[in-house]
Amino acid sequence: MSFISEDFEKLVDALSKLPGVGRKSAGRLAFYLINAPREQTMELSNAIKTACNNIKHCSICNMMTSSEVCDICSSENRNKKVIMVVENDRDLMAYEKVGEYRGLYHVLGGAISPLLGIGPNELNIKQLMKRLTEDIDEVILATNSTIEGETTATYLAKLIKPLNIKITRLASGVPVGGDIENIDEITLLRAYKGRVEI
Amino acid sequence: MSFISEDFEKLVDALSKLPGVGRKSAGRLAFYLINAPREQTMELSNAIKTACNNIKHCSICNMMTSSEVCDICSSENRNKKVIMVVENDRDLMAYEKVGEYRGLYHVLGGAISPLLGIGPNELNIKQLMKRLTEDIDEVILATNSTIEGETTATYLAKLIKPLNIKITRLASGVPVGGDIENIDEITLLRAYKGRVEI
Repeated sequence: MSFISEDFEKLVDALSKLPGVGRKSAGRLAFYLINAPREQTMELSNAIKTACNNIKHCSICNMMTSSEVCDICSSENRNKKVIMVVENDRDLMAYEKVGEYRGLYHVLGGAISPLLGIGPNELNIKQLMKRLTEDIDEVILATNSTIEGETTATYLAKLIKPLNIKITRLASGVPVGGDIENIDEITLLRAYKGRVEI
Repeated sequence: MSFISEDFEKLVDALSKLPGVGRKSAGRLAFYLINAPREQTMELSNAIKTACNNIKHCSICNMMTSSEVCDICSSENRNKKVIMVVENDRDLMAYEKVGEYRGLYHVLGGAISPLLGIGPNELNIKQLMKRLTEDIDEVILATNSTIEGETTATYLAKLIKPLNIKITRLASGVPVGGDIENIDEITLLRAYKGRVEI
């Protein structure tokens, strides 16, 4: 597409590096951006720059934030004796949307995955162990229910056990609205084993 | 998501204005950008700004270009007596990829669509008519084979007719690799009517 302009090609290149955006979609997005109102494109360009310059990680829980300590860690209305360990900020947001949990978080920054070369040292575990030396009642291991998430939870549980802190894991079972015939066997087995009296 | 940071929210807002990007995908993209290497995000931010600042429309054919006159219009190797009229730059690129056509283009910037409030005045038709007063052998009306594209082609054909220039339209028929049983009736009718001797 070089006959259009080098700037256009650079834009397509940069856009096609986004996850889920192929060369063709990048071309479409580039066309859209060039023909969009100038304010909109400048807003996008500046928003990317500002966000990437200003957003850092909370020095306590490792969550993204614009300040030194995030709003949750510095809040007076949070139970500072409970820590929910999540893989990433997106999971944290999902729990925050539910609105029920009032404790603090700890963002690992991923899960143990030998395939991807992510070991415990690549995760924010040291900082978690430091936090657990303080007066903590409960650690909720809310990593994903994937092999990597389960491995990470098992690893952390072993590490935390000697500290005599209550360790919990999110309940596993049939999702609400889930159709039993379409649910995989492992989930069904867990739902069965974890059955509760009504 | 305001507890993360205002900068994050602004980024999600800006991203969700892109076509085909919903609120959820925008959030995912924003997370990706913030965690991506700084050079990559700055490259994207700058590419958007540079492209939108530098790319304008060719003063002859209305195609996107970084210069006053585009590479195609200023090329010595193009047949300047044939003009292919296309709806937009994407269509132009599609024809350029084929590599067969060696004439010039004219980008209308859309097609007549009463539903969208686009009439002939919203399109780049005046400039086309001006170009046609010069020594032109053929005008190829290569608008889409949609109602809007056909309407535009019919409108232009009527307008150009008095100038005594050869007017052609792209052949319509069964696409290569197309399965006859799955092709709509209008296309089949056209393929039948336009049948060629072998």
